[in-house]
Amino acid sequence: MKLSTESYKGVRDFYPQDQQFLNYLLATYRDVAKKFGYAEYHASILEPSELYKAKGAENAEMVSEQTYTFLDRGGREVTLRPEMTPTVARMVAAKRREFGFPLRLFSIPNVFRYERPQRGRLREHWQLNVDLFGSESRAADAEIIQVSYELMKAFGANESDFVIKIGSRAYINALITELDLDEDAAQKLVGLLDRKNKIEKAEFEQGLAELGVPSEKLSAAHVPADVQAVLDILSAVGIGNAKFDPSIVRGFAYYTGVVFEVFDTHEDNNRSLFGGGRYDNLTAMFDNESITGVGFGMGDVTMHDFLEVRGLLPAYHAPTHVYLAVASDAEVPHALQLAQELREHGVHVASDFGDKKLADQIKNAAKNGVPYLVVVGQNEITSGTFMVRDLSNGNETPASRAELASFFLER
Amino acid sequence: MKLSTESYKGVRDFYPQDQQFLNYLLATYRDVAKKFGYAEYHASILEPSELYKAKGAENAEMVSEQTYTFLDRGGREVTLRPEMTPTVARMVAAKRREFGFPLRLFSIPNVFRYERPQRGRLREHWQLNVDLFGSESRAADAEIIQVSYELMKAFGANESDFVIKIGSRAYINALITELDLDEDAAQKLVGLLDRKNKIEKAEFEQGLAELGVPSEKLSAAHVPADVQAVLDILSAVGIGNAKFDPSIVRGFAYYTGVVFEVFDTHEDNNRSLFGGGRYDNLTAMFDNESITGVGFGMGDVTMHDFLEVRGLLPAYHAPTHVYLAVASDAEVPHALQLAQELREHGVHVASDFGDKKLADQIKNAAKNGVPYLVVVGQNEITSGTFMVRDLSNGNETPASRAELASFFLER
Repeated sequence: MKLSTESYKGVRDFYPQDQQFLNYLLATYRDVAKKFGYAEYHASILEPSELYKAKGAENAEMVSEQTYTFLDRGGREVTLRPEMTPTVARMVAAKRREFGFPLRLFSIPNVFRYERPQRGRLREHWQLNVDLFGSESRAADAEIIQVSYELMKAFGANESDFVIKIGSRAYINALITELDLDEDAAQKLVGLLDRKNKIEKAEFEQGLAELGVPSEKLSAAHVPADVQAVLDILSAVGIGNAKFDPSIVRGFAYYTGVVFEVFDTHEDNNRSLFGGGRYDNLTAMFDNESITGVGFGMGDVTMHDFLEVRGLLPAYHAPTHVYLAVASDAEVPHALQLAQELREHGVHVASDFGDKKLADQIKNAAKNGVPYLVVVGQNEITSGTFMVRDLSNGNETPASRAELASFFLER
Repeated sequence: MKLSTESYKGVRDFYPQDQQFLNYLLATYRDVAKKFGYAEYHASILEPSELYKAKGAENAEMVSEQTYTFLDRGGREVTLRPEMTPTVARMVAAKRREFGFPLRLFSIPNVFRYERPQRGRLREHWQLNVDLFGSESRAADAEIIQVSYELMKAFGANESDFVIKIGSRAYINALITELDLDEDAAQKLVGLLDRKNKIEKAEFEQGLAELGVPSEKLSAAHVPADVQAVLDILSAVGIGNAKFDPSIVRGFAYYTGVVFEVFDTHEDNNRSLFGGGRYDNLTAMFDNESITGVGFGMGDVTMHDFLEVRGLLPAYHAPTHVYLAVASDAEVPHALQLAQELREHGVHVASDFGDKKLADQIKNAAKNGVPYLVVVGQNEITSGTFMVRDLSNGNETPASRAELASFFLER
């Protein structure tokens, strides 16, 4: 009875091409976050389940139904983290005296959701998390949006490729208080705003009327003061594709201030790519000192789709610059020495061990995407001249042993 | 009732200093592996439990007692991978037609063991896995040992800091056949060899005599042919600290040929750092075509301890090159523009938002390890001259706005 070679359902195997793309994402995330002075942290995927249940019964239900949660052998309930925010809140609360605020942190965790596997709905994905703790300033809100913008640019996107829509949960909450809406009506209002761009204008207006909310209070022309302050700062640092959108409310209960979403403007992928906003009191579950924060999360699958639609996916490059094939077993020791010589110059070299015929060695190097190949045989060793074969077209270029390293480093 | 800020037992939180060290490890692993043409792959930590049980009853017991194994909501048994080798065997078996052999692969997974948490016994660690598939050549065995050697050098170790001990499971297995030892005696022999360096010579000799094994067959002077071939290649590529050691047998049942371990030579840390060897037929559980392989694994905790003892741990550098403090709220927009200007030159800049007094802004930047600070006030903006404060000693250096970027990039 043979085992299946498939991965567990809903998760991915990362073959070299996939892993190279993931590494490109991670490197770009890191570059941009560090430019803004964010420090990287990380944690185990295993967390005590109570970390996610703490926010109330609704969360306890989410934990038991939508996460990987199990008992360890000591009877403790453990969860594979479904998001990073509770973890970073825990870590910041633990060392709040050692950190200086405002505190800038980022992480690139894998996160897990228990979902029925289906196209585009994975059980595990990687997610950049960027958070700024300890400032109430609108400039902090603006910075988080600026980091999002710079990420999009670092991936090769133009301003016309995406739009940053900004809303205000603080404004909506103030409106709810001002109009004295009860909890049910307040939820209906948030739900209605969330659907605004998916329904007809008349339906939206009618919904507002039913709730007794004057429609001019929620028109795109009526920009709340906090959003305007953020827009002014973004404009001052040269960002031209941010705008107020009253429909941006974000589902998560913990948002309390300015919220935003970055939308793809491409007609084939016209959807929210990622977003975030301001939250408060996330550390209140650990102690009595709350810390305010603003942040966002960005998933690897969504970014892959965006880059694919835009033709911005980077090409795969094999890690090997040159493959040394051997005419026979006898040349293996010589090939290994040549390989080591080239490595000392910074060339990435793999050598064959002569288990197969020369033609098969060449075929296998090409299969693995290696760009160049050099045959090491008695003639080449004696003459000191090697033929460098370009495996993409078969062209050959002669090079002396001394010239070999620079040949590859120049390409 | 407040929650604890501690992580789940036996796993680690990676604060910025810890994460920077982990990133340094990963970057060094990647650099060396790529120099030898190894391609990086990765997979989810979730694997079907049968992947680990397939090797027999002993494995089924290991899975149920020493791993994190649980049922998902669909009733499937899932395990958090305790090692990467079964995963890479699965992935290679799945795409064997698409790969060219010899095939060089590496990965840096986190792996999980269910152990009672105690000092130095963690439940999760990161582990470099390097594997070369599809060659029976002794040159392949030598290459894997050479990669290990180059890793040690890349971490700053000298040849005198470590020694590579090489043994041969193939030789031991042939000896067992030659002497017609039964399974019990064979296991005793392997156990005796494994303990060789921990017991007295007389005890070792007596153990051999009891098993009927001539002691000259297992002396350091009697180098098996496969080990000698590997030693010759290592010597030819300039490695001077490898030697035969008959006690190197490695516990894992799957090793079948040359095996090795890298030992720290430091008197305070005189132990095996990592090791590996040749195995066969790992892909046989998936189909009828077996693939030979040779590889090793190297854990992050062991390497950290080695580097610490040797004084080779890299110093922490905050991601921020310079912190912009503001004299008052009014200068925030100006500071944000200056920050963006400097970022465009490649400087990593964080700005304060003026929530706190200037003295506190400076204190907080120092707390986070930022090396330099610039105060943005009306005078500085008007005069165009900024004072750069070195937060390690309080020294100040004046710089014009145009000079600022190069000041930080030179340091």
